[in-house]
Formats: sequence, C-alpha cells, structure tokens
Amino acid sequence: MTKRLKLGMIGGGQGAFIGAVHRLCARMDDKYEFVAGCLSSTPEKAAKSAKEIGLDPSRSYPDFKTMAEEESKRDDGIDVVSIVTPNHMHAAPAIEFLNKNIHVICDKPMTSTMEDAHKLVDAVSKSDAHFFLTHNYSGYPVVRGMRSLIENGALGKIRIVKGSYLQGWLGSKEEDSGSNKQAEWRTDPSRSGAAGGVGDIGSHTMHLLEFITQLKLQSVSADLTTFVEGRKLDDDASIMIRLNNGAKGSLSISQVATGEENNFTVAIYGDKGALKWSQENPNYSTFSQVGEPSQIITRGGSIKVEGTEANVRIPAGHPEGYLEAFAQIYSDAADVIQNKENKQELLKILPNIDDGLHIMKFINASVESSNNDSAWTDLSTIK
Amino acid sequence: MTKRLKLGMIGGGQGAFIGAVHRLCARMDDKYEFVAGCLSSTPEKAAKSAKEIGLDPSRSYPDFKTMAEEESKRDDGIDVVSIVTPNHMHAAPAIEFLNKNIHVICDKPMTSTMEDAHKLVDAVSKSDAHFFLTHNYSGYPVVRGMRSLIENGALGKIRIVKGSYLQGWLGSKEEDSGSNKQAEWRTDPSRSGAAGGVGDIGSHTMHLLEFITQLKLQSVSADLTTFVEGRKLDDDASIMIRLNNGAKGSLSISQVATGEENNFTVAIYGDKGALKWSQENPNYSTFSQVGEPSQIITRGGSIKVEGTEANVRIPAGHPEGYLEAFAQIYSDAADVIQNKENKQELLKILPNIDDGLHIMKFINASVESSNNDSAWTDLSTIK
Amino acid sequence: MTKRLKLGMIGGGQGAFIGAVHRLCARMDDKYEFVAGCLSSTPEKAAKSAKEIGLDPSRSYPDFKTMAEEESKRDDGIDVVSIVTPNHMHAAPAIEFLNKNIHVICDKPMTSTMEDAHKLVDAVSKSDAHFFLTHNYSGYPVVRGMRSLIENGALGKIRIVKGSYLQGWLGSKEEDSGSNKQAEWRTDPSRSGAAGGVGDIGSHTMHLLEFITQLKLQSVSADLTTFVEGRKLDDDASIMIRLNNGAKGSLSISQVATGEENNFTVAIYGDKGALKWSQENPNYSTFSQVGEPSQIITRGGSIKVEGTEANVRIPAGHPEGYLEAFAQIYSDAADVIQNKENKQELLKILPNIDDGLHIMKFINASVESSNNDSAWTDLSTIK
Amino acid sequence: MTKRLKLGMIGGGQGAFIGAVHRLCARMDDKYEFVAGCLSSTPEKAAKSAKEIGLDPSRSYPDFKTMAEEESKRDDGIDVVSIVTPNHMHAAPAIEFLNKNIHVICDKPMTSTMEDAHKLVDAVSKSDAHFFLTHNYSGYPVVRGMRSLIENGALGKIRIVKGSYLQGWLGSKEEDSGSNKQAEWRTDPSRSGAAGGVGDIGSHTMHLLEFITQLKLQSVSADLTTFVEGRKLDDDASIMIRLNNGAKGSLSISQVATGEENNFTVAIYGDKGALKWSQENPNYSTFSQVGEPSQIITRGGSIKVEGTEANVRIPAGHPEGYLEAFAQIYSDAADVIQNKENKQELLKILPNIDDGLHIMKFINASVESSNNDSAWTDLSTIK
Repeated sequence: MTKRLKLGMIGGGQGAFIGAVHRLCARMDDKYEFVAGCLSSTPEKAAKSAKEIGLDPSRSYPDFKTMAEEESKRDDGIDVVSIVTPNHMHAAPAIEFLNKNIHVICDKPMTSTMEDAHKLVDAVSKSDAHFFLTHNYSGYPVVRGMRSLIENGALGKIRIVKGSYLQGWLGSKEEDSGSNKQAEWRTDPSRSGAAGGVGDIGSHTMHLLEFITQLKLQSVSADLTTFVEGRKLDDDASIMIRLNNGAKGSLSISQVATGEENNFTVAIYGDKGALKWSQENPNYSTFSQVGEPSQIITRGGSIKVEGTEANVRIPAGHPEGYLEAFAQIYSDAADVIQNKENKQELLKILPNIDDGLHIMKFINASVESSNNDSAWTDLSTIK
Repeated sequence: MTKRLKLGMIGGGQGAFIGAVHRLCARMDDKYEFVAGCLSSTPEKAAKSAKEIGLDPSRSYPDFKTMAEEESKRDDGIDVVSIVTPNHMHAAPAIEFLNKNIHVICDKPMTSTMEDAHKLVDAVSKSDAHFFLTHNYSGYPVVRGMRSLIENGALGKIRIVKGSYLQGWLGSKEEDSGSNKQAEWRTDPSRSGAAGGVGDIGSHTMHLLEFITQLKLQSVSADLTTFVEGRKLDDDASIMIRLNNGAKGSLSISQVATGEENNFTVAIYGDKGALKWSQENPNYSTFSQVGEPSQIITRGGSIKVEGTEANVRIPAGHPEGYLEAFAQIYSDAADVIQNKENKQELLKILPNIDDGLHIMKFINASVESSNNDSAWTDLSTIK
Repeated sequence: MTKRLKLGMIGGGQGAFIGAVHRLCARMDDKYEFVAGCLSSTPEKAAKSAKEIGLDPSRSYPDFKTMAEEESKRDDGIDVVSIVTPNHMHAAPAIEFLNKNIHVICDKPMTSTMEDAHKLVDAVSKSDAHFFLTHNYSGYPVVRGMRSLIENGALGKIRIVKGSYLQGWLGSKEEDSGSNKQAEWRTDPSRSGAAGGVGDIGSHTMHLLEFITQLKLQSVSADLTTFVEGRKLDDDASIMIRLNNGAKGSLSISQVATGEENNFTVAIYGDKGALKWSQENPNYSTFSQVGEPSQIITRGGSIKVEGTEANVRIPAGHPEGYLEAFAQIYSDAADVIQNKENKQELLKILPNIDDGLHIMKFINASVESSNNDSAWTDLSTIK
Repeated sequence: MTKRLKLGMIGGGQGAFIGAVHRLCARMDDKYEFVAGCLSSTPEKAAKSAKEIGLDPSRSYPDFKTMAEEESKRDDGIDVVSIVTPNHMHAAPAIEFLNKNIHVICDKPMTSTMEDAHKLVDAVSKSDAHFFLTHNYSGYPVVRGMRSLIENGALGKIRIVKGSYLQGWLGSKEEDSGSNKQAEWRTDPSRSGAAGGVGDIGSHTMHLLEFITQLKLQSVSADLTTFVEGRKLDDDASIMIRLNNGAKGSLSISQVATGEENNFTVAIYGDKGALKWSQENPNYSTFSQVGEPSQIITRGGSIKVEGTEANVRIPAGHPEGYLEAFAQIYSDAADVIQNKENKQELLKILPNIDDGLHIMKFINASVESSNNDSAWTDLSTIK
C-alpha cells in the first residue's frame, strides 16, 4: 500500500461547513492523513477548532504564512494543503503554499477577483506543485460516464447544452439572521466576489457542462437579479450561452427557488443522442439515441463506458452520493501526486487552474452582460 | 339534458393530425354533434375526407365561404365552427364565420401574421359570437388547480417563472421526407408565420405560464436558432422573460432535443411557495411552501382547491391525459355558448382573442429580439 | 365509414360511476351510438336518469327483460348492450340479451357467484353474439406492447410474476356514510360476491398478469383480511401464486392502503429480461434485458412492437389515460362485431367468457384458501 | 475530541466485498483507527491482504484465536472487532472476542445455524462488551425519521407492512463462474445457512420493517424457490407475514429478478397514515395522511422529527447513500462504547443480539414453512 499523503487545511474551523466535508472526503479512501491546519482567521478560534477535531496543537497554526513556513521545513511536513476559506481568501494562501511546492486543493470559485485569479495562474505556472479545484460534481461516476459517452461520439455533434441549479435557502434575508455564516459571506461582495449565486453555484453548473461535453463557453447573455431586498449580490440568474462548437443553451441559477434543496440538473442534446442527469438522484443518467428507447444508465451498471468503472466503491443499486463524488477528487489528486499509472488520464479530468480561470471569466462576463442590458459578452473580453 | 351544439370544421381532412383530435374531444363530453365541414383546401380531398369520417355529403363544402353562407341559412345550421388548418388559414375563415355570428374554436397560434391578428381582433369585437383558442394545456385539472392556488395567495409574490417545452421530432430534416405534412407546414414561414418552434410550442409555454400565474409577459431577450441545415424557421430557442409584476424567468423551447417526446414543464416560484408540473405525467403537481415538506397534489385528490373539482371525470389515481384536457376546452366552450351558470367563471379561464393577440406579440417580439442580438424587446412595441 | 353500432345499457343511472365511463368510452372513437337503456333497478329512477342524459324516453325501459324483448323486435334495435350493474346483476341481463343474439359488453368480475358464472358460460356457448368483459387495463397500448414483447420471447422463460393493486378509499367504514353507493355494494356479499377487494381489484390484477404473460394461474395461497371493523368482506389480501409454466409470484391487494389512489403495478421477470408497468403513469414501461441498461418504452415511442402502434390516438409524449384504455375495449369490440379485418387478432386479446370464468375461480380459490389457513388451493378444484 | 477507538477485523481480505466497506465506514466519521486484523482464513492470504491495505504486519494474525489472545494483552489492543466473514464464521470469533470483553460489530445474518445463534446469545449475556449487527439500512437518516414518525403516532394503528428486496445478480449460475466469491459462499448451505436469498436480503427486509414500526413478526407462510437449476439454496421467495399487533403483510425477496440492482422498498400503512421508502433513492420518503396530499420527506429537510437531524452530515439535497448509512452504525456504536450522552437512545436503535436471534428465527421459520407447503409457522416454534 502506498503511504498516506500528509494533509493540511486552511479554514474549516467552527461554524464552517465545507471544511468538515473536505476532511471526511480526504479520509474516505484512506489516501490522506490530516496533520496540520490553520483552521480559522483568528488564532484563538484556530486553536479551539484544532482541539475540537483532535489536531496536534503543535501543528495548529495562527496564520497560513507561518504554517507554510513551518510545514515546509519539517521532514514530515504536509504534502498537500486544502484551502476551504471564503473566496477572497483562496489566492493568498494558495500562492504561499505553491511557492513552497506544496500541492494545493482549493475550493471553488477559484478567487473573488480576476486580479487574484491571474496572480494564482502565475504562481501555479512557477510551482512544481499541482493545483486542483474541488468542482466536486465532476467526481460522480455517472457524470464521468457521460463524458466518456460523449467523447466516444454517442451524441454526435452537440447542439444544446442546458444546466439548471436551483436552491431555495436564500429565499429570505438569511444573511441578517445572525446565525448563518454561510449566507453572510456568500452574499458579501468583499468575500464572495462580483457575483452571488452565479459565483457559488453557477460556477459548478458551467464547469460541469464543460466537463461533460469538453466544449468551451464562448459568450453569455445574462440577466442577474437580486430578489431579496437589501441583498448585495444576485440570488437568481437566467443566462443564455454560446459554446465554441456552435452549440447553444441556457443556465437557470437560483438561490431563491422556494422548496428547492439542491436541484442541479444538466441536459445535453446532440444530433445523434442526448444525456440527462440530476444531482439529487445522482446514480442514474438517461441516455437517448435517435430512434431508440431511452436507456437508464446506472452507476456500476450494465453499460461499459471507460471511466465509469474505476471509481465505483460499491455495487450498482447501492447509492453513492455527494460525499463519494467529492472524495473522488481527493482520491484522484492523491493518485496524481503519487504518480500512479493513471496519472495522465486523471490530469485530463481533474479541475485545474485553467478551469478555474475560465470559470472566473464566465462569472465576470455574466455580471458584465447583466449590467449591460444582457448584451452578449465574449469571455475573451474579460481580463 | 341540454341539446348538443351543432359543430362544423374547417380543415382536419386526410393527413391532418389535430382535426381528428378536435373531433374526438368535441365528442368526449357529449356536448357537440359534428354535422358539417370543409375538411380540405381542395374540393376533391374535402369530399373524400368527409366520406371517410361519415359526414353527410350535402354538408361537406368545397370552401369555407360557401359553408358559412349555407350553414348560416339553415335552421339546423352549425352553432360552432372549429378551425384546424395551418396558421395562415385561421384568420380568413374565422372572420367569415364570426361575421355570421357563428362561434369559433380556433387552433393556435391565432394567426401567422400580426396583420391577420389585428383583423381577427376587429372581427371578434364586431361579432355576437364567441371566439376561443385551443391552448389546450390550460384544460388540465391540475393546471387549473395551480392557478387557483396562486390566485388564493399560496405562493405569495411570484418571483421566478420557468417554462420548458422540449421535443425531438424535428432533429433532422423531416420536412424533406415527403411523408410528414406536419413538419412541412410547421417549418414553412408562409404557412406557419415568423417563427417555427417558438410559434408552435413556445406559444403554448408562454400561454400556460400566464394562465397559471395571471401575470403578463412584458419583454423578452431571445436567442432563436435553426440547428437543422436548410430549415427556414427556428427549431430551438432560449428566451429570457420579464413579467409585469417584476417576476423574471426563462423559456427553453426546442424541437431538436433528441430523445424528448413532449417534455413540457413549468415551474413557478414565489416568496411563500412554489408549484411545478410536467405534462408527460400531468395528473400531479409538486407544491412547496417555505419551511414545509413538498406536497404532491393529484388530480381529484386530497387538496380542496376551487376549480380543480369541476372537471374531474374519473377518480384520483385513474390518469387522465392530453385528450381529456383538450376536451375540457370544448366542454367549457359549450357551457359558455349555452349560457350555463358557470359562464362568467369559464370566460375568465378560456383562452380568448386577447390571449391570442398577446401570444402573437410574444412570438414576434422573440423573433425581433433574436434578430437584434437578443436585445430586450418590449411586447408593447410589436404592432 | 362504417355505420355506428347501436348501443344499449343496463345500469349506469344516477349515483353510478362506471356507467358514465362506459358511455364516454363508447363515444370516444365514434363507433357506437347510445340509443336505449334500463338505467336503474327502479322504473322511476331509470326514467329520470334517461332524461338526464338525453335518452329517447321511448327507449328507456323499466326492466331489462322488456328492453331485450322490445329492442330485439325493432329494425333499428340495439346491436350491443353494456351491463354496468353491480356484480350480482350481471348474469341475468347478460343471458337475456345473449339469448336474443345481442352482443354483450359486461363489467367485471363476471358474476357474483360461480353458479351464475356457469350459467353465463352456457348462454354464451349457445348464442351467436359476442361476450366481452371490460378488463379495461388490457386496453393500454403499453400493456399490449408488453404482451407482444413477451410473446416474441424478449423475457425468455418467465420466472416471477408480481402484481400489486393498492387503494386507500375504504380505509374507514365508508359503506356506512350514507353517501357512498360504491362502497355500499362493493362491500356487500349479496351484491359483490364472495370477495371484496380481491373481487373488485384483485380480479383486474390477476387478469392483467395473465394477459401480459399468456400464462395461466394454477393455484393460490391467500391471506384475506378485513381491517375495518364490521365490514363484511375482505379489504386487504396477500396472495402467493403459482402459474402453469412453473412461474411463481405474489399479489398485494388492498383498499385500506392509506394514501394510495389507484396504485396498480405489475412486474414480470424472466431469465432473459423483465418488464414493469405502473398504472398511475401508464404511458411508460421499463424493459430490462440481462447485461443491458434498462430501457424506457413509451406509448407510441421508439420501440416497434406489434400491437403498440394500432391503438395510439396521439403522438408519444401526449399522455393517454384510463379512459382511452377503456375506450380501446369498446373500439376493439366494435371491430370484432363488424368483422373488421383484424377480428381474429382482436379476439385473442379481448377479455372474454373464458377469462371471466377463470378469474371467478381465482376469486373463489383465494377465499377458500384464506378460510383454510392459506392452504395452497388449485383453481381446478373450484366448481 | 474523543480518542479514536482501536479497531480490528476478522475477514475482509482479498476478493471480499464487505470488508472494505466496513473499513471505509469505520473511517468516515473519524471515530476508529484500524490497527489489527485476521483478514483471511489462510495465514498467507491474511498476510498478503494485510500488506495490501497497509496494516502493521505485527498485528496481522494468522487466526482469530491468536488475535484475540494477543490483542487483549496489549495496552494499545483493539477496543472493537469487526467480523465480516461468511455467516458460518461469525459465531466462533465473536464468542472469542466477547470472552475477552472486546466489543463486536458483526455482519448479518448473525450466524448460519440456530445452534450458533444460541451460543452467541449466551456469550453476549456473559460479556461486558457490546455486540452490534450491521443491519446497515437502519442507519439511513430518513429511515430513522420514519421510525420516529410512527413512534409519535403519525400512522395510527399499523395495518399493513410490505417489504420488497429484489436483485438480479444471481439470475444465472454465477457460483459456477469461478470468479464470483460472493455468489459461491452465499449459495452454499454450509457457509450461508439454511436459506439463500431469504438469509442474505430477506433478513435485511424483515429487520428494517421491524425497526421502522417497532412491531415484531409473529408467523410466516413462505414459498421459497430455487429458479436456477442446480443451485442449493433459495434464490426467490414470497412470504406472507403476521405481526404481533395484528398487522399483516408480505415480503418479496429475489436474487433472480432480472434487471434489478438493489431494489429494496418498504411501505407501511396505518389507519391514519402511511410511509414509503426506496433504498435506491434513499434520501426521500413519501408520507401520507388520511385526507391530505402526500408529502415528500427529505433527509435534512423541512420536517422536524426527533432522530432525523443528528445524523445528517451534509445539507438536504446533497444526497447521502449506502456508505453513509452504514457508517452511521459504526459512528453510533462508537458513541455507545465511549458512553456518549446519547448512549441510551442509541442502544434502542442499534441492531443487537436480540434482533440477531429474532431474524435467525424468521429465516428458519420461512424455510420450515416453505418445506411444509407454506403452512403458517410461528417464530416461537423455532428453537
């Protein structure tokens, strides 16, 4: 058995949500050992959080610079760091660790500003370390199977690409409730960036569509709305999209869609076939071909598509979920870092710095289009 | 029992689809007797079609003018005429019969041109007869229940309105196959009008959203596409919409969505609740309220909503379908014509000349917006 | 066009449910004209009901004998009679009309007693008229497609056969409410027969399984229960079944399954494939084959199976429902009576006197088994 | 943070399936550290497997007796042992470790014979250690919510209890393929016990129904079948059941249901309400109440039911699956062992030795009934 990678974490202390998810997912396939962290922006909270989750106090750091400094000096220092802070705090620590050639697994969207994004691109280009983004939905086995099917031509030329990501949790002014940290920073431009819902879940939607189709978004015509009075960022968006192969489509993004939990769906139509998937029941995909009855593709089930088999932990019919998909990103990142034989294949599918920059352009082009009466805005104009 | 209304028909001869549907639906609730027709544009085919369906040859007419003339003279002449021709042939016969004060039930969209639409509006205003449009999806009991729920405030202020109508039957150039009359005229601007899919099924989508919400569309930003090479009209469209109360949303319209049969769905989100419905399994709606588990509303089922009971022919769990919903329009039109006690209620919900004109503006605004780089286009600018 | 058949009806007056369904379904495909009836067991109610639905008073009869007598004398007398009374009143009128060589369409189960069943078998054997039973679920196009698939070997040797028919409408003592005629007679042994739910909906379940598989039930081990105190017949049953080819399975029948509307499902598993269907969304079936992804078969959709095309009134994706399936039985019966070219094919699939007798044996064997500690009871022992 | 428990494992070496699942699930919530094992029945394979998964060679044991002996001597010896061998190898190691007061987490069914079951009961009664069974489906949050709803009276008096567990993976003679260890031992009476499918998945089904309802099975009438020629144990069963409160119902168990993956469903109907759940989409349950629209209960969603909140790792709409439910058993067992404050609550819901014995009686009563012409067989007669 390969040795476990030593993992550190920036963020993810008390009151956080995604930090615990990252740790659980790092643990799932037994490829990481969590050994160091700077879990909060204040030293006291960082120490308290470290104690709570059983981290060695000598490796709980008051700030990320100290942590990068100290860990890089140790023989048993961390191999990888996970960055699970709000968006505005991604770039600085990521750059710090990249400069020490420590691998980075970073939450999405990559940064809060284009400026930070470019700095990060620069740091990655100069580092020997890998940089991965947790666009976790691309870890679902069925989603990867869809990508393989399309790569193998099952859909023919893709014409229409649709994504819809609907939540209802921000239907009222949660950020003023005093008890919802998530709502607070996600609706705060200084921490979240230029967009609210479009940055938070629109980013996942657009990434997944590109991941599955291997097409690239070219331009957007967007209508972003803030339905909850006093909110500072968009909580709903309709976006029309055009892709590099001539395909078109639309995105429906909302965090005020009452009654919706995490209703994220994609549908892709080509001239020979179509594929549909829904995140809330993620072990299935509907695959249609011209003139044939639609088929239900299942995780681990009958269809033999490259990429759907490797990452199935339990047999078909035993549902896997969000955590397993998320853990897949961690598992694959470990394999890359440890130069496993599937490294080159994995590098093609793991979300990376290029994806991060591209999605940042998508977010900013959407905001710009919306501010400009939904004028079609080319991503190449976003600097 | 009230006497059956005498019904005539323009169009609906051999090779037609919707004519037989109209006749079946007129028959379903036993309120009409089909007695006269001009079933085809050529006298020979008209006569042959009449014979085939058992129409009295003396009341099979070679042209609609003769028919209007003759039938209006008879003591037992038709009370109502159904117009089931391609769009460009709606206005002329409708006006002819309206001028004779014979009630008209007309297929949608109302006309192929704005000019015709205005002429028809004028004719209706001068006639003593009623004019109804078969926006048949508004006849589904559950859809009417959704309207009632919203009218009663169950959704609070409506924020988001989404409609999606996806078909795959025009994925290749069916209109050239020589055997698909439907594809031929529906993709022909001279018969269909300025739009293809947007006119054919976009019209249903937008009408239904307005029917359910009682809101009015104000402006559109549209991206119409012709994916099948050589086709003369749009076969796919993404449309962003803004409504008169500040609500926003989007429409996804396609006739090249491979694998889709008649996947027509609507979703409406308010600040207090939400409703979703899917035409392919039309006896159910999902009703969500803030902080409550979603409910499954069923046709004839437990929820007591005004308007959902009247038109249930069979108990809950015994599915009704497209034909029953379509027949409801006929049944209700008969009740209006015969001055039944629910006449005033029915006049509020039956699709009429105002709806027809409004939907024509929606179609034409969508085309104009798309031709103008998806610029937001106000319906009031369409003349 | 063929002339419409003249139709009469026994039962179906005020307060009845299924009579109106029969009339609507007879009308749907325009092959019948409803002209005579004995709509109620009391002459006054019969006349009143006749008036209400617009029946010529001279052809509204006070009793079925008079009606058979008079109608058989007329030149324009009825060709067919529908018998839609409670079970105990099926045999007598059916025999009367069969004796006059008037075709009979009879509701199910065929009779309330085995004695009546045998008398009816005798009458059919001596008559020149046809006898059809409205086991209406066999009229669903997708159900017929399932039969064709199995006939063509798609499932290989059938091993397991499961049927479940769950309703909740008799969860409390509805028969005492004073306002539920249906509950009254269906729970009354003198009108319904030896079984309650097993006779009412178990009969449909077992018929449909045999219809689809073309297998025959051989023996049952049943546990019938009356959950509602004071009720005279079973309102719930579990039944284990064995079929003539060695297949086995089970039936779940209930009218006290709280929350269920008309949840009727079947599943059939062979050594090569499987088929599943649910009545509440009846335009679809799931078709599985060993080693292949499951397929969704749709009414009118891509699979080309003999028998699925003929009776599709509207294109795939436009849902048909209970009434269309029921109407199919009427439509097919008309074709048989009028010696249409598909007569021999239709005679194979239309529910007939043999099915009726067999299902009566199933009902009575189930009751006997249940009374005998669920001992396996062979249908051949039921006389 | 509480210290991690030291975990050992019996079985789970190369070629096994469930061992890796146990280890992953023990890891998920970070309450265990896997430190010792006897991973295979042969010392060589045990050592090889240990190396493969990174186990310290000095704590990889050639047999379970040595392991119990050695580990119980160490200061840092294991606190808990997981037994993941085939059924016939559960009792001996479990007793060995219980005698050393080491806690046992044992796969199901508890043993292969009633004799072993009684021995194990005896050992548990004499030990200070806890004994838990991985009836893992009881770890699903929504399933626990269903139990809470019923405990709180939401269903009234329970009348009908239905379970169906359908798989297709043994549709042909997999046990002869030479490459399917799972099929080999599960169809071998000497390793599996008196029953095949009934022992393997029937045991889960019956346990879950009792877990949710808190009722107890009293008697069974069973029809077990071996459809695949030459197989030594049942691969299909229909079982009628009667419970201690007068409720009745049925079980459908199959491993030859072609096309089914792991289609495990339960439905429970009371006189006031009903609950339904499907394992393949396990984050939802349908909750019906008399006279109300059915509700969709979601994991972590709007309904506030005691017991449904504690074990939600991620927000509603982010699906959890089989592994999370399985991990819940491990997580709860750790809390009990470490005397967390919810210990008494957890002891009520964790599957224990009494459940194990009871389910063994269910399995053996089913076999006996089936051998006895499906005669009703009381569980109290099974010794």
